[in-house]
Amino acid sequence: MREFGTSDLDPVIHGKLRLGVMAYLASAGSASFTTLREKTGATDGNLSTHLRKLEDAGYVKIDKRFEKRKPLSVISLSSKGRTAWIDYLGKMQVLLGSD
Amino acid sequence: MREFGTSDLDPVIHGKLRLGVMAYLASAGSASFTTLREKTGATDGNLSTHLRKLEDAGYVKIDKRFEKRKPLSVISLSSKGRTAWIDYLGKMQVLLGSD
Repeated sequence: MREFGTSDLDPVIHGKLRLGVMAYLASAGSASFTTLREKTGATDGNLSTHLRKLEDAGYVKIDKRFEKRKPLSVISLSSKGRTAWIDYLGKMQVLLGSD
Repeated sequence: MREFGTSDLDPVIHGKLRLGVMAYLASAGSASFTTLREKTGATDGNLSTHLRKLEDAGYVKIDKRFEKRKPLSVISLSSKGRTAWIDYLGKMQVLLGSD
């Protein structure tokens, strides 16, 4: 009866900016902070905030290093993040496919 | 460059319960309050609140009448609501299909 129930859609992924980040990482595997900012059109501050939420949930790993003396952050999808993404994707496809 | 930008995803539709309601109405066209409550698993109060938001946006019409002396609310998708749904659906499919 509850086939249109949405309360179990993962709120960590459903947030709009995080959804864009997860979609990109699911496709690319990993990306620099700069690339993610360009792909999502987010501001630095907003992207940082939401990457921290994804990191806190264990969905992404953030690797900070130096390249040619410049700081570089590389963000990659964790296996927990990929599992959560696939689960979200399946639920959304059922929901959207019902049109 | 901003193909993973999500800031223009309609916030009226993206809210989880409203998403379930819109998905059901896009498929069924219209439904009684009771049916929507069963299909989404929402409480009365929560469903009322979010139906009001959809009504304020002009996405649904709420028709209150009496049937066999009992009050009956019939909620139907407006043409504006259907257009907004199709737009949302297209954007989400691009986003989710990129995996």
